Amino acid sequence: RINGDRLWQSLMRLAEIGATEKGGVCRLALTDLDREARDLFVSWCKDAGCTVTIDKMGNIFARRAGRDNSLPPIMTGSHLDTQPTGGKFDGAYGVLAGLEVIRTLNDHGAETQAPVEVVAWTNEEGSRFAPAMVASGVFGGAFDLDYALSRADTEGKTMGEELKRIGYFGDQEVGGRKVGAFFEAHIEQGPILEAEKKQVGVVQGVQGIRWYEIVVTGQEAHAGPTPMKRRKDALVGAARMVGHVNRIGLEHQPYACATVGMMQVSPNSRNTIPGKVFFTVDFRHPDEAILNKMDAALRKACEDEARAIGLSLDLKEIWYSPPVKFARECVSAVEGAAKSLGYAHMPIISGAGHDAVYLSRVAPTAMVFVPCEDGISHNEIENASKDDVAAGCDVLLRAMIERANA
Amino acid sequence: RINGDRLWQSLMRLAEIGATEKGGVCRLALTDLDREARDLFVSWCKDAGCTVTIDKMGNIFARRAGRDNSLPPIMTGSHLDTQPTGGKFDGAYGVLAGLEVIRTLNDHGAETQAPVEVVAWTNEEGSRFAPAMVASGVFGGAFDLDYALSRADTEGKTMGEELKRIGYFGDQEVGGRKVGAFFEAHIEQGPILEAEKKQVGVVQGVQGIRWYEIVVTGQEAHAGPTPMKRRKDALVGAARMVGHVNRIGLEHQPYACATVGMMQVSPNSRNTIPGKVFFTVDFRHPDEAILNKMDAALRKACEDEARAIGLSLDLKEIWYSPPVKFARECVSAVEGAAKSLGYAHMPIISGAGHDAVYLSRVAPTAMVFVPCEDGISHNEIENASKDDVAAGCDVLLRAMIERANA
Ligand SMILES: NC(=O)NCCC(=O)O
Ligand SMILES: NC(=O)NCCC(=O)O
Repeated sequence: RINGDRLWQSLMRLAEIGATEKGGVCRLALTDLDREARDLFVSWCKDAGCTVTIDKMGNIFARRAGRDNSLPPIMTGSHLDTQPTGGKFDGAYGVLAGLEVIRTLNDHGAETQAPVEVVAWTNEEGSRFAPAMVASGVFGGAFDLDYALSRADTEGKTMGEELKRIGYFGDQEVGGRKVGAFFEAHIEQGPILEAEKKQVGVVQGVQGIRWYEIVVTGQEAHAGPTPMKRRKDALVGAARMVGHVNRIGLEHQPYACATVGMMQVSPNSRNTIPGKVFFTVDFRHPDEAILNKMDAALRKACEDEARAIGLSLDLKEIWYSPPVKFARECVSAVEGAAKSLGYAHMPIISGAGHDAVYLSRVAPTAMVFVPCEDGISHNEIENASKDDVAAGCDVLLRAMIERANA
Repeated sequence: RINGDRLWQSLMRLAEIGATEKGGVCRLALTDLDREARDLFVSWCKDAGCTVTIDKMGNIFARRAGRDNSLPPIMTGSHLDTQPTGGKFDGAYGVLAGLEVIRTLNDHGAETQAPVEVVAWTNEEGSRFAPAMVASGVFGGAFDLDYALSRADTEGKTMGEELKRIGYFGDQEVGGRKVGAFFEAHIEQGPILEAEKKQVGVVQGVQGIRWYEIVVTGQEAHAGPTPMKRRKDALVGAARMVGHVNRIGLEHQPYACATVGMMQVSPNSRNTIPGKVFFTVDFRHPDEAILNKMDAALRKACEDEARAIGLSLDLKEIWYSPPVKFARECVSAVEGAAKSLGYAHMPIISGAGHDAVYLSRVAPTAMVFVPCEDGISHNEIENASKDDVAAGCDVLLRAMIERANA
């Protein structure tokens, strides 16, 4: 069994980097705080005797040798970046659970047949740089390296520039090597395990995600002397489109989720009719066919509203992550571990995207979920219990040992 | 008659300060660009032989002595700050028309009985610091000096700090002195004069303005695993409220205007359900009673939507500028000047607020409007013809001479 106190202490220490007043963490990808978290993680990995390498996406790999180092490694990990109003567990848990697996193996002087690696993937959140999971996506062959390095934040800074600035543009090529299996431990970020009183979720797969960027353009004019009927108010149009996004989500229940998370109004002046609004749409569903219906409904609704108000519309799908089904042998390893350890568990579909999604393209993959309080994540009040994170890590350890010696 | 070429050249020279690619001007109040425009204006006033004084709100007064300097001055002016996507004429025209009046009097060695002053009021736009017309408002007794100096921009910088930073926190007290009359020349910023083919608008008064700041608070959560029915999406609520603002405007036709010009979404991340949205509302109507009805409708609609979604609502009216009727003798002076100069003219109500609104509390006041292309203002494409701005300035000259010698 893993050392639950040590894992908890590591989580709390890491959460100091970017700690917010409300008890959360704001550690956006490739900021100075992200560098600080990376440096700490690297130092911990070296203390645990690992060999650390960094690739051109800034992904950090810490390797514990196995008996047969010609075997592909059994890999685990997650990410160190957070949302602007993030919590202590999203991402950090999966990275530190991986480190705890290695520390536990060290405690027992235990050897594995295959080497074991723990990895911290760059910019999983997709908050500073869209899309999400972009660095594991390059590793998994979903994105070109050049595409990924050229992703820019709202100020126009690219991932490539920022990786160099913080000293994490590594020398290793991204991916192109064999991985024996990939496991990722994560908080559920939803309400199901808590409601069902289960300590462990055996993740079967991940629902599909579509991201859009929409720009509606009208005409700036003075809010005072411009009669209502002469206006081309981009925000009136965008606001109706937000309503449609919500309606489309509600019309595709159960399961569909639909969110406008980001909006930027120009010129954003109290007495100027907005001339331009940029906003994003996030659609999710486990069934690709329904995501297609939601897509068609979105396009139609936005076109209709734009036409009605006289706005021009630029609607782009910028990311599609299709629904994923994890590998039988890895899911079984997780389920078997939970069963043999006596933890209450259940099968579950992930509502969030994870680095495991793209790893599943190049390696047999599965995930271990643990409950989080009230199902809340992407919020500074995100919380999980010490017992639950320890239980998930126990399951991770056992599943990894099983695959490493298979 | 004034020198139309000189006036136009001054307008074009001033428009270089903060010039945008699309041919407009971005010169927000109390920025370095505002300082540059102020410095240029002050140097021009000194070249014209004026005495320049600056008050504690950064208002700049340039005085041309009269025959009897114990008489209160006949004052004219407007503002040098612009919207983020502003034009070359809004504000600048009224300031430079005033300077052109003084230059013309100088050309002819003409003496006036009362002294003449041209003034540049600080932060008329209300875009960087709300409310609008705040510095003429202190002069007119509508606001305390401390209140005005403590107005902050979105970064928390106050007007007091920024006035000191750019060197325009003057030594004169604000107001508290007699003004014989105040005239302001301005582009109409609406479509009426152009549609009616009139070169001059004889402004009778200004419609009422109410400004609100609204914050709706829900709960941040992950856009992927958070079921639609568990959400408290602040942006879904705010979007519906934007729809209500628009509806309330449309329900109070003719005349009503209703605009949401500014919106800020938190945390503004693509895959986080927005936890908080800040937005502003601008309501206008010439009739106070109807503004009250619009106010009641807004409060009810926002409360209903907030309750329906489970959001908390903080709705504050932050500014009310009641409808204004200008002084008979000043309006007549403008009308008489337009008539005797042979310019096609008509009475008009201003849809925009102007510094003249607050001057009318302490001095007999009127305004001269000239048409602007397509009625468009608060837009980089804002345009006015050289002939029309010259015509308005001619009317201003004649009305001021009439009052200065009355
Ligand atoms: N786990 C997580 O929060 N991932 C971010 C990507 C997503 O939006 O699902
Ligand atoms: N003239 C002008 O644009 N004033 C700004 C104040 C207002 O919003 O009416």
